[in-house]
Amino acid sequence: MADASFIRQIYDRYPEMVTKGDVDGIVALYAEDASIEDPIGSDPRRGIAAIRAFYEAAAGSIVMKRTGPVRIAGREAATPLVILMGNEGDQKALDVISLMSFDASGKITAMRAYWSFDAMRAATADDLKGASQ
Amino acid sequence: MADASFIRQIYDRYPEMVTKGDVDGIVALYAEDASIEDPIGSDPRRGIAAIRAFYEAAAGSIVMKRTGPVRIAGREAATPLVILMGNEGDQKALDVISLMSFDASGKITAMRAYWSFDAMRAATADDLKGASQ
Repeated sequence: MADASFIRQIYDRYPEMVTKGDVDGIVALYAEDASIEDPIGSDPRRGIAAIRAFYEAAAGSIVMKRTGPVRIAGREAATPLVILMGNEGDQKALDVISLMSFDASGKITAMRAYWSFDAMRAATADDLKGASQ
Repeated sequence: MADASFIRQIYDRYPEMVTKGDVDGIVALYAEDASIEDPIGSDPRRGIAAIRAFYEAAAGSIVMKRTGPVRIAGREAATPLVILMGNEGDQKALDVISLMSFDASGKITAMRAYWSFDAMRAATADDLKGASQ
């Protein structure tokens, strides 16, 4: 089930769910014992309750978009994303690469994200194209 | 030494070195006991001799380009790349995300790459722009 086309589909739905604030939908993508390390180097959050709390804090208040193709090796995937935040006319952008590992049934077992607040930048017209909350 | 601007510089030089086939230059970027897992899921290659052999097989016969910003968290980085191969008029493209970890002195301690031959595609005009070997 967790083949390349399945994984690509998740990475189409996931940014939409984060943007809409669909926390139930996001949590349903994860395995019960999954972990999140976001950003890389922070203390991992383990288990569905911690994952729900993480997305409740973030989802719906940012716009997340995929900026390039999903790269897949087996059941491991890496995807370039951009996150937009802030008020219209003063939006900031944060470039992210997200890693996801999947189990055989297609649930996410681990998500790790490469980014740093140091790299926050002004959003460009390209970033904002089609980016409505 | 291995701060974000240093790491970004490595990811500007590395694709050029791979494209030119500068194996000595590439190997000098790595720590003695570094490892490479390329693609993710393959048996890791450990140590400088194995790393040299890996690049001797690949470098110089492909064009590698960075396609988006380097994402950095501490001394860990993730970067979207494209690899072009094949003869003029029939070039193929492979989308890759490369992860690199650095030690305090700025040497690469681990490189891992997300890609699969299944995702090989025809190169587009955008891929080829400025892509000369």
